[in-house]
Amino acid sequence: MERVRSRMEALGVDALLLSLGADLPWVTGYEAMPLERLTMLVLPSDGEATLVVPMLEAPRVEHDAGLFALRPWSEVEDPVEVVARLVGGRARLAVSDRTWATFVLQLQASLPGASWQAASVVTGPLRAVKDAEEVTALRRAAAAADRVAAALVAGDVAMVGRTEAEVAADLTARLLAEGHTKVNFAIVGSGPNSASPHHEPGRRTIGEGEAVVCDFGGTVDGYCSDTTRTVFTGGPPAEFRDLYAAVQRAQALAVEAAVVGTPCEDVDGVARRVIEEAGYGPQFLHRTGHGIGLEEHEDPYLVGGNCEALVAGHAFSIEPGIYVEGRWGARIEDIVVATGAGPEPLNTVSHDLAVVA
Amino acid sequence: MERVRSRMEALGVDALLLSLGADLPWVTGYEAMPLERLTMLVLPSDGEATLVVPMLEAPRVEHDAGLFALRPWSEVEDPVEVVARLVGGRARLAVSDRTWATFVLQLQASLPGASWQAASVVTGPLRAVKDAEEVTALRRAAAAADRVAAALVAGDVAMVGRTEAEVAADLTARLLAEGHTKVNFAIVGSGPNSASPHHEPGRRTIGEGEAVVCDFGGTVDGYCSDTTRTVFTGGPPAEFRDLYAAVQRAQALAVEAAVVGTPCEDVDGVARRVIEEAGYGPQFLHRTGHGIGLEEHEDPYLVGGNCEALVAGHAFSIEPGIYVEGRWGARIEDIVVATGAGPEPLNTVSHDLAVVA
Repeated sequence: MERVRSRMEALGVDALLLSLGADLPWVTGYEAMPLERLTMLVLPSDGEATLVVPMLEAPRVEHDAGLFALRPWSEVEDPVEVVARLVGGRARLAVSDRTWATFVLQLQASLPGASWQAASVVTGPLRAVKDAEEVTALRRAAAAADRVAAALVAGDVAMVGRTEAEVAADLTARLLAEGHTKVNFAIVGSGPNSASPHHEPGRRTIGEGEAVVCDFGGTVDGYCSDTTRTVFTGGPPAEFRDLYAAVQRAQALAVEAAVVGTPCEDVDGVARRVIEEAGYGPQFLHRTGHGIGLEEHEDPYLVGGNCEALVAGHAFSIEPGIYVEGRWGARIEDIVVATGAGPEPLNTVSHDLAVVA
Repeated sequence: MERVRSRMEALGVDALLLSLGADLPWVTGYEAMPLERLTMLVLPSDGEATLVVPMLEAPRVEHDAGLFALRPWSEVEDPVEVVARLVGGRARLAVSDRTWATFVLQLQASLPGASWQAASVVTGPLRAVKDAEEVTALRRAAAAADRVAAALVAGDVAMVGRTEAEVAADLTARLLAEGHTKVNFAIVGSGPNSASPHHEPGRRTIGEGEAVVCDFGGTVDGYCSDTTRTVFTGGPPAEFRDLYAAVQRAQALAVEAAVVGTPCEDVDGVARRVIEEAGYGPQFLHRTGHGIGLEEHEDPYLVGGNCEALVAGHAFSIEPGIYVEGRWGARIEDIVVATGAGPEPLNTVSHDLAVVA
C-alpha cells in the first residue's frame, strides 16, 4: 500500500476506488464479488483506507484493522453515497478498470467536480513487475498446467471420437487434479475451429487428420497459468507441417528476443516477421502476448504500438499463431519471465508437433 | 430489437452501447468475452446496429447479417474510436451496466458532448417480464437444480467429515450431471460459517450437530437456476428448530404474498415481519429476493424502497434467512414466477428441516 500511495502522489491521484478485478485483492487480500451490490475500497493518498462492502458479505472479509477500516452497508442504504462521503473533497480519482459502468456513472453523478481515470494507470506498472515470491507462484502454476500439457502431447488425452466440449471438460478436470483452485478457460478448437483463436468448445466431434488447438489456464494460490499446445490427429500433411514450423520458429525467436530493455512491440515484431516471411502474415490475427499474474491478462502487452521496455520481473505469454479460415490453425504458448540473466520460460513441455489419436 | 428501439424512443435514448452482461446476448445471441479487448454493440434508435468485436474473436460470432453488421478491429486499432465513429452525433447514450470502467472513461473522453446512463434503464423492465418460452426455460433450470436439492435433503450428499469445499465440488458435479452447462456458484457454509450468507466454501471440515446452508445455481440453455436448502447434521436443538421455523414461515408467507400488483417491497416486508416477530429482525441481513433470467441477479429486486409492482411474468427468488454471528444460520430459497393465477414456485423440494449425516 505504501508503494501505491507514493505512485498516487507522483501521478497526482487523490483517491483510488477499487472494486472488481485484481487491484483490490492485490492491496487488501479481499476479492469483490461480481454482483450488483457495490464493494469498493476507498484509498485516499492522504488518509485511512475504507472497504465499503454489502452487509451480507462483511462476514467474508478477513479484516486487518491496521490495513483498512470496514464499512458494511445495509440493503436500504445507497453504497454510492457512502463512497462519495468517504471521497469527500478529493477531486482526482482513479477507479479500478473492471468496475461496472453503472457504478461509475452513479459515482460521477454524486461527485460532479471530480476527474476520473483508470486505476491501472497507478497499479498496472507496479503489478507488472513480479517479485521473487510472485515468480515462484507463477512457476508453480505453470508447472501444474505443464503436467496437463505433457499428458496432452503424450497422447494421454483422447481426441478422435470425442467432442471438443468433452476434451475441454477432461482438460478442466486435469487442471483441478494438478492443483489449480479454479480453471479460467479451456479452449479446444478442432478442424476448421482451430482457425478461431478464442473458439468456444462445442459439440463438434474431433475426427482423424485434424489440428486441435488446446489453450488452457487457471489459478494456483492466486496466480494464473496459461499455456497452449497444438496437436494433430494422425500424420499431418506437409502443408500443415510447414505452417506449424513457422509458428514454432516465431515462438522460439520471440522468447529469445524478450530480454530486459527490449520494447514490447519489438518482441511482437520478431514473431510477426517470421510468420510474414512464411507467407502467413495476415493469418497471425492477434498480438504476440500479454502480461500475467493475479489476472490472466494484465500489463505488459506485447503488441504493436507498445514501446514500453521490458524490465526484470515482467511475466508474459509468448503465443504466436497462424489461422487459415475454414481449414486449420496452430498456436504455441509459454509464459516467460524477463530476468537479468535473460528470458526464463516457465512452461517447458516440448514444442514439436505431437501426433495423437 | 423492435421492443428495445421503441423503448429507447420513449425514454429519449439515441444509442445503446452493449458490452458485458446479458443485454448483448439477449439482443444478438452473442456474449462478449470478459477481457481487455472491447466488444460492443452500437444500437442506434435510428439506424443499423453494428457489433464491434476483436478480430481474433470474430470467427466466434454467429452472424445474422439482417440483425447487425460486424466490425472486427485489429490489434493495432483503437476500438473506442471505432465505437465513437459509429455513435456519430448521437448524444444521449446508454451503456450496459457491466461494461468495464476503463471503456466508459475512454468513451466519455472520445464523446465529450454525450450524456450517459445505464442500459438497464432501457432493458431491465423488458428483460424482467418473461414470456412463456422463457418461463419454460427457467422451469427446466429449476427442475435440474431441484434434483440436486432433493439428493441433498434426502441425505445423499455426505456432509460430516468432508470439507465445505468438497461438498461444494460434489454439488457442482451434480448440477453439471443434471444438465447445467455451467455452474455459477455453490455456497456451502457450515457451523459458524452458516451465518455468513455469501460464504466462500473452504477447508473447514463439517462436524456433527451443525447447520449447513447450501445455495447453488447455474445455467441451463442460457437461463439460470438458484435454490437454497439448509440441512442439519444430527438432531437439531430446539433453539435451531425455532429459528428454522421462522425462516420457513417467512418464506412461505412471502411466496403467498407475491401476487401480481403487489409492490416488491411489500413482499420483502411480509418476510421481514415474520422474522422480526420471532426476535431475529437484525439477523435477517439481506433483501428477500432478486429477479432471475439470463442473469442470476436482475430486475426486479424484492427490497425495501422498491415500490415497483409485480406483473405477470416476473421471475424472482424468495429467500429469507437468519444469521446468528459466530453460531449458525439458515436460509430457504425458491424461484417463483408471478402469474395471473397467483405465484408459481418453480422449486418444489420440501422445506422441512432435513437431518443428514
